[in-house]
Order: sequence, then structure tokens, then C-alpha cells
Amino acid sequence: MPDRIASPVGAAPGTLAIDPGAKAPGFHCIVYDANQLDEQRPASVADLPDAAVQGVTWIDVVGLGDANVLRALGARYRIHPLALEDIANVHQRPKVESYSDEELFIILRQLDAHTDDGTEQVSFFVRPGLVITFQEQDGDDLDPVRYRLRQGGPRLRDSGADYLAYALIDAIVDAYAPELDAREAALDAIEERLLSTADEDDLRALHQLRRELTFLARAAAPVRDVVAALRRATTPLMREETRIFLRDCHDHAARAVERIDAGREQITHLVDLYLSQVGHRTNDVMRVLTIISTIFIPLSFIAGLYGMNFDTRSPFNMPE
Amino acid sequence: MPDRIASPVGAAPGTLAIDPGAKAPGFHCIVYDANQLDEQRPASVADLPDAAVQGVTWIDVVGLGDANVLRALGARYRIHPLALEDIANVHQRPKVESYSDEELFIILRQLDAHTDDGTEQVSFFVRPGLVITFQEQDGDDLDPVRYRLRQGGPRLRDSGADYLAYALIDAIVDAYAPELDAREAALDAIEERLLSTADEDDLRALHQLRRELTFLARAAAPVRDVVAALRRATTPLMREETRIFLRDCHDHAARAVERIDAGREQITHLVDLYLSQVGHRTNDVMRVLTIISTIFIPLSFIAGLYGMNFDTRSPFNMPE
Amino acid sequence: MPDRIASPVGAAPGTLAIDPGAKAPGFHCIVYDANQLDEQRPASVADLPDAAVQGVTWIDVVGLGDANVLRALGARYRIHPLALEDIANVHQRPKVESYSDEELFIILRQLDAHTDDGTEQVSFFVRPGLVITFQEQDGDDLDPVRYRLRQGGPRLRDSGADYLAYALIDAIVDAYAPELDAREAALDAIEERLLSTADEDDLRALHQLRRELTFLARAAAPVRDVVAALRRATTPLMREETRIFLRDCHDHAARAVERIDAGREQITHLVDLYLSQVGHRTNDVMRVLTIISTIFIPLSFIAGLYGMNFDTRSPFNMPE
Amino acid sequence: MPDRIASPVGAAPGTLAIDPGAKAPGFHCIVYDANQLDEQRPASVADLPDAAVQGVTWIDVVGLGDANVLRALGARYRIHPLALEDIANVHQRPKVESYSDEELFIILRQLDAHTDDGTEQVSFFVRPGLVITFQEQDGDDLDPVRYRLRQGGPRLRDSGADYLAYALIDAIVDAYAPELDAREAALDAIEERLLSTADEDDLRALHQLRRELTFLARAAAPVRDVVAALRRATTPLMREETRIFLRDCHDHAARAVERIDAGREQITHLVDLYLSQVGHRTNDVMRVLTIISTIFIPLSFIAGLYGMNFDTRSPFNMPE
Amino acid sequence: MPDRIASPVGAAPGTLAIDPGAKAPGFHCIVYDANQLDEQRPASVADLPDAAVQGVTWIDVVGLGDANVLRALGARYRIHPLALEDIANVHQRPKVESYSDEELFIILRQLDAHTDDGTEQVSFFVRPGLVITFQEQDGDDLDPVRYRLRQGGPRLRDSGADYLAYALIDAIVDAYAPELDAREAALDAIEERLLSTADEDDLRALHQLRRELTFLARAAAPVRDVVAALRRATTPLMREETRIFLRDCHDHAARAVERIDAGREQITHLVDLYLSQVGHRTNDVMRVLTIISTIFIPLSFIAGLYGMNFDTRSPFNMPE
Repeated sequence: MPDRIASPVGAAPGTLAIDPGAKAPGFHCIVYDANQLDEQRPASVADLPDAAVQGVTWIDVVGLGDANVLRALGARYRIHPLALEDIANVHQRPKVESYSDEELFIILRQLDAHTDDGTEQVSFFVRPGLVITFQEQDGDDLDPVRYRLRQGGPRLRDSGADYLAYALIDAIVDAYAPELDAREAALDAIEERLLSTADEDDLRALHQLRRELTFLARAAAPVRDVVAALRRATTPLMREETRIFLRDCHDHAARAVERIDAGREQITHLVDLYLSQVGHRTNDVMRVLTIISTIFIPLSFIAGLYGMNFDTRSPFNMPE
Repeated sequence: MPDRIASPVGAAPGTLAIDPGAKAPGFHCIVYDANQLDEQRPASVADLPDAAVQGVTWIDVVGLGDANVLRALGARYRIHPLALEDIANVHQRPKVESYSDEELFIILRQLDAHTDDGTEQVSFFVRPGLVITFQEQDGDDLDPVRYRLRQGGPRLRDSGADYLAYALIDAIVDAYAPELDAREAALDAIEERLLSTADEDDLRALHQLRRELTFLARAAAPVRDVVAALRRATTPLMREETRIFLRDCHDHAARAVERIDAGREQITHLVDLYLSQVGHRTNDVMRVLTIISTIFIPLSFIAGLYGMNFDTRSPFNMPE
Repeated sequence: MPDRIASPVGAAPGTLAIDPGAKAPGFHCIVYDANQLDEQRPASVADLPDAAVQGVTWIDVVGLGDANVLRALGARYRIHPLALEDIANVHQRPKVESYSDEELFIILRQLDAHTDDGTEQVSFFVRPGLVITFQEQDGDDLDPVRYRLRQGGPRLRDSGADYLAYALIDAIVDAYAPELDAREAALDAIEERLLSTADEDDLRALHQLRRELTFLARAAAPVRDVVAALRRATTPLMREETRIFLRDCHDHAARAVERIDAGREQITHLVDLYLSQVGHRTNDVMRVLTIISTIFIPLSFIAGLYGMNFDTRSPFNMPE
Repeated sequence: MPDRIASPVGAAPGTLAIDPGAKAPGFHCIVYDANQLDEQRPASVADLPDAAVQGVTWIDVVGLGDANVLRALGARYRIHPLALEDIANVHQRPKVESYSDEELFIILRQLDAHTDDGTEQVSFFVRPGLVITFQEQDGDDLDPVRYRLRQGGPRLRDSGADYLAYALIDAIVDAYAPELDAREAALDAIEERLLSTADEDDLRALHQLRRELTFLARAAAPVRDVVAALRRATTPLMREETRIFLRDCHDHAARAVERIDAGREQITHLVDLYLSQVGHRTNDVMRVLTIISTIFIPLSFIAGLYGMNFDTRSPFNMPE
Repeated sequence: MPDRIASPVGAAPGTLAIDPGAKAPGFHCIVYDANQLDEQRPASVADLPDAAVQGVTWIDVVGLGDANVLRALGARYRIHPLALEDIANVHQRPKVESYSDEELFIILRQLDAHTDDGTEQVSFFVRPGLVITFQEQDGDDLDPVRYRLRQGGPRLRDSGADYLAYALIDAIVDAYAPELDAREAALDAIEERLLSTADEDDLRALHQLRRELTFLARAAAPVRDVVAALRRATTPLMREETRIFLRDCHDHAARAVERIDAGREQITHLVDLYLSQVGHRTNDVMRVLTIISTIFIPLSFIAGLYGMNFDTRSPFNMPE
């Protein structure tokens, strides 16, 4: 998958490379504390709420198709130009960075069936009282967190921006599991079939699954590393209580990576099995051909021998 | 093996995802010290014994099919919600964690022929005077420890909860050896056969063994890492005397992992040998076919030549 | 690609091994600070500007075909003989070294379609107020930086030699991306074709792409390591502000390396797919041959049997 | 190779699992110092000499078939029950351990042609003035040390138990070299043959050599690690003078491991070469068959055409 | 390549194992300082010069066939018996060791076309004012250093024994480059040919090149490690000025190792390409055979049908 919308080569750092096909930005804001929750969809950057003094402000930016809006967001919330560049150029490796002690900048990849490689970039900007998320498309990976916020479950509403960031990351990591379930079921079905027959379509299906798992691996492995880095990050922004939950989230991400690796190993073995069976079948076919031929070709010759004309009238007679 | 009963995506952390097919919980308690041993099977969480002040209380919970019981256990023995979630969702990676200095939470996988991948999760909650084990099914891997407790061997009855935890872990690790013996004997038998013949059934058997060893490896390798982590754990809960025994247990686990790896390597070589032999056989078959054909096809042609009709009456005669 | 112009074996260290086909050196100097910029093309080493006291002097040396000029440069700007040897012998591994606290010596590889392996060496000598670059050929990878210098973008003109060095390195790293886009598009096209047919030309194209990616990998991976080393270098020459930008540059280089590795992995799978399909096709062809032969060879024998002459006049008659 | 005589699953740690086929123990004691040497073969544990106050006592126990004798030895020389268990269960991984500052417990594998995997376990218990060795069978790997002790070479007789332990380990490591010489000569002979012909027997021989080298690798690699661990061990038991000799011994062991790895790599390449040649040969055979068939099958058809009966008397004549 | 002249198994450490076919030792001494150089070829150990007080004494010992001479050298220059054993047994792994702060003992492998594996051992004994080198054969890898000493280039004649040791090591490392040039040119030529045709001789040539590169890798990789170890060695014998040159030498050695690895990787791909092409060719040949056969075998049957005798005189006539 070529990075078709990369920054022009040699551009100054911080240049915003906007994909011409990207959606125009829309905003979805939730401002909450333990007692109340306010949800709004402002139309412009000027109408966005500030970081909450008590409680948390979550701004979800969907669509990255307008450089001016991104620059306005960067100016209003003091986002570093290099971070803004990474938000706009959606082919970054998942990573966690901080440009100051008071903030975290996180890039992950969430699953998205509409893209070439099945994943899209989601960026987080975290600061006390404030979480800004940047997504390419409307997705529903983050919806369960919105639902839980509205329900008012105690831990989520009582805790700070770091816990909200954890909850969002956890939702993204959890979304890998059903995708993997589907892939594993497909693999098991192919394995079942391969043990009795070897069909070229199965080979293509294996190739396709390998491709998909490769894309998943490239997304999931760095996501796991980012969660591990967050656990160990020295920033005071991430409180001790939240780190225990990040450990749990890391377990889930690590398990997803292990399942992907196991799936890819299984594919390698299935391709080998397929090839062994094709080889064996060629051998069987050859053996039938050889048995038939070694019996009947000499017999045909003998029959042909007795079919020869030894008529004395023919000049082609053998000299007997 | 898909994690079919994972938590719903985006669920709050600590949500208990109960597998609808899971057994209802049953309890088996042993309270002992050097002088006496009391065994009981209480019907409810309320009837369970407390942590022993002198000696050790071992509560074995078999069956994880009731979220209320698990929650009651968590409340009564102060088990962290994330730990409870891991206990209920039986597809965790083996690990050791502690939510406080005074407790250890350990997840291992024991062998269980009735599951898809041949292993089931067993969880340990260890605290001074208390060990709680959680199993999916009644198994007999832990029975030898019960037997030794009843026999009253000195070290086991005299020591604390940490030594009981070690003894249980050691029993789980030891149970890998006979499984590996069986696999290795099967492999040796296939190898014996393959050196004289190459049968497609052997190929399938190799594939099956590889699958089983892969599952074993995924269980055994993290079990070994957990034992190593326990040896090094800084918690005062694990006393120096017990750590020497954990070193021994780690040796056993490491040896199991090595045997699994050796078995998988042997399978790779046997599959290669199989393919070489099929290739060789195809070649031999081809050679026979070619020899027969190169001798008899030209001879048949010559015989056919002499079988031609040069009768003057036929309009198809060659012009001589 | 043999290092055809290596130093003679056993030569004293610091011996300049000049490639007889190398271009004669030419100079392109830019002296700038925040307010002004002066561009010149001096004819000899004597006419070159000194390191700037305020602002930065950038001397771009293109062509390494004259040992005297290189020695004169070394003498005038105090470049260590071993560094000079590395500049002249253009088959060095990318690396960063410092012969004193006040200077950095960096070797990278930039893309160059005119060489055997598609890359050429570019060396940097960095000191306060001075950057000297050494290239084999006129290239345009560094042109975007010249353009930005002339445009007078604030950060580049305001900052020191370390930021100019960063900007040049970043331009080199960025130039890998479009090359990779082209390779990835070619790979995807071959994959598309391979899934329907298996053509020997595609195999050769895959081999050629693998070769090119191997060369790119050998250039890009050490470039990434050099950028990482620069980030961590303890020299005061590299200021904290610039290091943040180097982190960004390192991300780009790491991403290029990952894309190359992904491409090579994809090639391996495509070659396997190709081989599987050829094997499958051979099997299909064999099956047709076998079916035809097993039907018609016995039939031909029977026909031949009835074509036998049982004429009593023939001495070859079967004794009936 | 299944661990057929492992401890019963779940047995208490320290349980002695005696192989029913193991030899009854015999003792061979040498007590020496710089001036004198006394050799004896006591019949029972009670008759064994104590650790020497001046000089060294070496007790060589051959045969591990009697649990009572092992327990008596353990009691008399204060050997830890876990160490005794490892001595009796002869499928341990080579390792070095110490249960106190004053002792070392070492397990190695020496070559023994009479076992399934070509190696047997040899255990060392080392304490000031005392070395006890435990072997399964009478072997002669340790004989050269006995010979050198009797000859009275200066260093060996003058030094302590640590030097004797080194000398015994060195003798075991040195014994790998001639085994490897034989394997390498066999490999070279097969390679010679394979370059001119591809015989299925060579394939089996390669498989057998790979098997043997795999067993050797599993013995030699941990032996090397044990020697490395001994070099670094912090115990005062191992004096500085002896460590220099252990460094030499480590070199020998490391070289043995490298030779084994090189041999296995060579086998992989030879199997590939074999397969390439079989493939090539199949291709050659096919080409002959195809040439003969494409020439003579059409010719036979033409001859058959002229052999057709167009006699007007036959009802099968073609309608002309 | 078996170590045919290893020490007898179980020999005391320090035993000199002399290869019966080894050359008798000869000496070539150069004593020099900045002002003068004296070259001589003494006949016996007694006539050898001492370590220089001012300047450096270089004794080059060629031929290791006389244990007495080696022992005399060891006694005169205080070489540790284990080092002497390593010098005589010429199958050591390259390594650097020091038996005291005041000396370095280095083993490398230089290229030598007359040996089985293309390399021979060269040992260095370095002490202030003294370098002793031990070679198996007269070679010319060290000649360039002699030439430069005689020419009196400033750095070499002015510096101490450590710089001479560096210069000799550098000469050995530089000698790998032309060997690699030749191998790479051969590989490129085979690749060129393979892209148009697949010849079994090329396969054998690839196998031979792989063998040679494997030997080179086994020599070059530890040589690189030895140079790296020398750079970091804490001995005061190696001065800071010389370490900068060792860094350069390490770059050269690392580059040689990389080129060898690249060559081996290229061979793997070329063997795959070869196999793919043979497979493809077999497929093409099969297709021709199948087309010819499916057309003409049924036609022959029809012709045979019309060649049947339905003469009423024959008892074999079909019942019509």
C-alpha cells in the first residue's frame, strides 16, 4: 500500500499534507465530570470548549480534509507542528511522544474495513482535563466509550483525562478480537478442507488471509508497543491507578499480536501441506500413467508386430 | 482457536464474560497445618473458610459458569476486578501479577484433553495463609498434591501458602512430561516408517502432531516464563526456601519447552524427508515410463510401418 | 556489487583511493543568516568561504575525482585523514563519527538512479557555523533545501549548522518514499496478475524487484541507525531543539525500512504463490495426459490385436 | 527420545526416580596430594573416604540403580535432595547450581555410544577437598585424568578440587572433537558424491547425520553454557588460577558447538542440492520422453493411417 | 573440515599438538624506531632480539612444525602455556585475550588459498616494544606493512607496538576485499546467465560459492568481533590514538562481513530462481507432451480401428 499522500519530498517539517479525498472535519464534544455530562457538535474551532478545570473535555475530530481547521486546532490547543503533520499524514507508525511534561501525543491504528489495508490512523492529544482524538472516518470503535460515559459508570466519570485515554485505547485494542475470530474460523475451515483435498482456490484464500493478517500485524504490534510505552512513561499525566488498567490493556494487545502470529504460522504450514498434497497427487497420477503405459505400450508393439505384412508381394517385407 | 467467549468489545474493564457452556462453580476446601487437615466441600461462598492464621487454607474452585459466585468470591477475598475478569475469560496468556505486596495472582495453563487446544486455564490467587485455585473442569493434575497433603509429608504440611502454590505449579508442569513422551514416541514411529516408505497418512499425522505441539508450546513457554518470574519476584510472599524449589520447577518447565521445540524441529525435517522421497519416487516412476516409452514407441512405429498396405488396389498407397 | 575502487590492499590508513571515473570536484557555497543569503560557485579551495561566525556556511562539494582538492579541503577545514579516506572511497557503511567534541562526520546514502545499486554516498562534515557536503554526482535530493533557504522560511534561516544538517538529512530520507511507492505499485500489479496466471516474466520481475529492495534496504537501514545515533549523540553541536526534528526524521527513516521489509516479505510470498501455481498446473496437465492415455492406449492395443494377421500363410502366426 | 524414567507425575520434589535398568552403583576413589596418591574401590558408602583436608578426594560413582545408596551418599556428604533427584533422573539439562557458597553442583552430558541419543549424564558435586562424580556407565572419558593423576604431572596434583573439576570437565569437552571429526568426514564424503549423483541412500544418511548432530547440539550447547557460567560463578570455591583454564575449556566447547552448527547448515544445503538435482534429473528425463513421443507418436499415427483397410469387402471402410 | 591435528583427547592443558605436516619455523625480525630499521633472519631462538626499549621489535615466526622451538619462544618471551597451545593448534576461533595487563594475545584468520577452507591462523603476541606474529605459511598479507616500515612513513615508524599490531591486523582485514570482489563478480555472472537459462553447472558453481563464502564468514565474523573487542579493551597497552584507527579497521571488517552475508543471501535467491525455472521448464515440456499425446493417441486409435481385419477367414473377427 503506497503512501500516496505523503508530504512532497523535501518539504519543510511541519508541512500539512492534506489528502484531497479526505473528509471535511466535524467535531463531537463531550464535557463531563462525576455529576454531569454535556454533549455538543460545534461547527467551528472557535466554538470548541476549553480543557475542563474539573472533569474532562473530550473533543473527537472526524475527517482530516482541511488544513486550515487543523492549523486552527493546533494554535488553539498548542499542538506541536510536527504532531499536526503526523495527524494529517495518516501513514504514521503507531507511537507515543511527548513534546512537554504536561502532554502526551499518541498515534494508534484502529480497524476500518473501508481502507486498503483494513486499518485507519487515530491520533490522541492528551493533557490534564483534555483529550482530543483525530479520526479519518466515522467509526464505531469509540462508541462503546461514549455509551459508558452517558451511562455514568463510576470509574470512567470519576477519573481524569488519563483514564479516558486508557478507555479509548482499550476500546481500539478490543476491536481486534472479533476480526481475529473471523480470520481464525476461516483458517480452520480451510485446514479442514485441505486435509481431504487440495484446491487452488484454497491456496488463493490462504494468500488473501496471509495478506490481511500481515496488515493486522503491522497495525497491532506497534499498538502493543505503544501501550507498553504508556505503561512505563515517566509523565505525571498518567496516574498510577490508570497504569494498572494499561497493564491489562497491554495483555490484550499482546494476545492479539500472538494470535496474528499464530495465524500466520498456521498459514505457512497449510501452504506446505497444500504443496505436499499436490506433489503427492502428481506422483499418484504419474504412477497410474506409468503402470498403464508399461503394460500396454509393449503389448501394442507385439500386436503391431503380428500386424506386419509379410506378403511376398510387398517390397517392404522383412528378409526371412 | 478463536476466543469465542471474549468480553463484548468496548465493555468496561472488569466486566465478567461468562462462557454460557461453562460449569457451575463447585468448591473443594482443604485447611491444614503440620498437625491436622480438614477437608470439606461447602455449597456456597458464605460457607468458605477464611485464610488460615496458622497453616494454610486451599480453596479449589472448579467451574466458572456463574458471574455472581465469582463476584462474591472477589468481594469476600478482595480480588481485584481485573484479576476476576482474567479468571472468567479463560483465554489469558499465562502471567504473574500482583495488585499489592501481600498477594500474587498467577495464570497458568494445564493440560486438558477435552478442550480444543488441549489445555485449560488455571488461575491462582495467593496470600499469606490462603491459596485459591480456579479451574474450568475437574482435572486430576492437582490430585497428587491433595494426596501428598493427606499423607502428611513433612515439607508440604509444615510450609506456608507459597510452598503450596509451588507444589501445585510443579504438579502442572510435571503433567506435561507424559504428554510429550506420547508425542515423541509417535514421532519416532513415523520417522521409522518414513525412512522406508512415504505415505500421505503420515503427512497428515505429522501435520496433526505439529498442531498439537504448537498448542503445547503456546501453553508451556509462558508457563516457564511465569515460573521464572516467580523465582525473581520481589514480593516477600515468596520465601527464600521456596524459591530453591521454584528453580527446580523452572528447570522442568524449560526442559518441556525444549522438548516441544525439538519435536517441532523434527517434524520440519520429517516433512522435508517426506517431500524428498515423494520427489525421488516421482523421478523413479518417470524414468521407468521414459525407458519403456523410448524403447517401444519407436519399435511400434517400425512395426506400424511394416503393417502399411501397399496393395495396388488402395488409392492411399505411397507412391513408390 | 564489488567495491571496485577500494584502497589498494595494505595501503597506509588515510590513503585516498580516487575512482578514475569520478567527476572533478565543483563547489556550490551558500552563506546565510536570518537576514541575508549569499550564493557562489568558487573555482578553487582557496576561494571557499570560512565557517560563518554568525549564520551558517554550507559548502556542497560535487565530484570526488581529484585527490589534491580533497587533501586541500582536509587541510583547510581540519578534516581527519581517516574521514577524508571515507569520503573518497564511496563504499562506506552509513555511520556517524566524531573526531572531536566540536565536529560531526556523517556518511549517508542517497538515491541515485545512475549507479549500479541505485544509491550514492553523501558525506557531511558539520562544525559550528559550517556544513560541508560531499556528493558523487549532481543530484536534486538537496535542492528542496536550497529552495527553502532562498525562500527564507523562518526556522531554517534562523537556526544553526545543526538544523541545516538535519534539513539535509531529512531531504535525503524523504526521497526514499516515492521510490518505494513505485516499487509497491509494481508489486501490487504483479500480485494481481499472479492470482490469475503464472508467467515466467513475472518471476523475473519479482527477482529484479527483490534485488532493488535489497539494495534499498542496505542503504536505508543504516541511514535509520545513523539518524538514531545523531538523536542520542552527546555532542553539544546538536542542540535540543534540533533533536526533536531528528526524532521526526528517524520516524520517516524507520517507516521506509519497514516498507522495504514488507515489500521483501511480499515478494517471498508471491514467489511461493508462483511456485504453488506452477506445481498445480503441472499436476493439471499431467492429469489430462493420464486420462487420455489410460483410455486410448489400451483401446489402441485392442484395435492392434484385431489388426493382427492370422493368415495361415504367415510363419509368424500365433499357434492356435 | 522420551524421558522414559521421569519421576511419577506430581511426586514430591526430591523423590528419587530410579531407572529399573540402571546399573548397581560401584565406587572408585582416588585420594591424592602433591606427594602421594591412594586408589581404592570400596564396596559400601560407609567405607568411602572423607573430603581430604590436604589434597583432594575424588569419588567416582558409576551406576545409579540403587536409591538407598544414593540416599546414603546424600546423607553422608550433605547433598541437597533436589540435587540427588537430578542425579538419579538422568534427563536433566546441563547446568551449574550451588545450594551454598561452599559447594557447586554441576550436570553435564558426556558422549556414550550405548545410549539412544549418544550421550549420558555426568554429575559433579564439588566442595573444598572433595569431588564426587556420578556416571551412568563405565566410560573412558575420565580415564585420561586418572592417568595424569597417577603420572603425577605437577599442576594437577598440586592444585585443589576446583582444578580437578576443571580437568574432568575439560576431558568431557575434548571428547566431542573426534566424534565431530567423524561426522564431518562423512558429510564431506556425501557432498563429494552428491555433486556427481543423487542417491536416495545419501538422503537417508544425511537425515541420520542431522539427527546425530541435533543430539550432539542439545548436549554440547548447554555444556558450553555451563562452562561459561562456571567461569563467571561468584563462588570462592573456584579460584582465579583455575578460571583461566576454564576460559580455555570454554573456547573448546564453543568451537564444538560452532562445528555442530556448521555441520547442520551444510546438511541443509546438501539436502537442497540433492532436491535440485532430483528436480533437474526429472526435467531431463521428461525432455527425453517428450522428444521421443513428439517424434514417434505422430509418425505412428501416419503409419497406422496407411495400415487402414479400405478393402471394399469390409463394412467398416471409410466412405470414399 | 575436521580438526585433524587436535590435541589428543584428555591431554593436559598446554600440551603442544604439532601437525606432522607443518613447516619448520623460520624467523624474520625487524627492529625499528623513528630513525633506523634493522632487518635480520636469525637461525635460532637464542639469536632473536629482545623487546625494544625505544622503538619496536617485530618477530615474525613462519612455520609451526617444531614443538621445541615454540617452547623455547614461550620460555624466552614468557608466553602462557595455554596461549602456546592455541598457537600450535591452528584451528582456534579468532579471539583476543590477555594473561596480564601488560600483554595482549590475539588470534585471527588470514586468507590463504593453499588450505582446505581458504584461511590460515595468524597469532599475535603484543607487549610494550614487542610484537610476535605466528603464521603457518609464508604469505604476503603482511608484506605491505614491511614495505611501509622500510619506506619509513611517519606514523608507523613513530608509533609503538600497539600501532604496529593495528597495521598488521588492518592488512589482514583489507585482504578480504579483493577475494570478495572476485566472488561477487562470479555471482553476478551466474545471475546474468540464470535469468536466461538454468544450467546444472551453475547450480554446482553456486554451491561451491556458498561453500567458500561460508568459510569466509566463519573467518571474517570473529575477526570483526576481535577488532571490536580490541577497540574496547581496557588494557593500557592499546593507546587512545591507536583506537581511532581500530575503529576504522572495524568498519572495514564489518563491511566485509556484510558483503559476505549479502552474497550468501543472493545465492539463496539464485538457487530459488534456478529451481523456479527448472519447475517452469518441466511444466512447459509436459504441456508439449500432453498436447501431442492428446491429439495423436486418440487419432492412432481410430487409425488402428480401421486397420482391424474383419476378414471372415479369421476366427478373431468381431461378431457382426
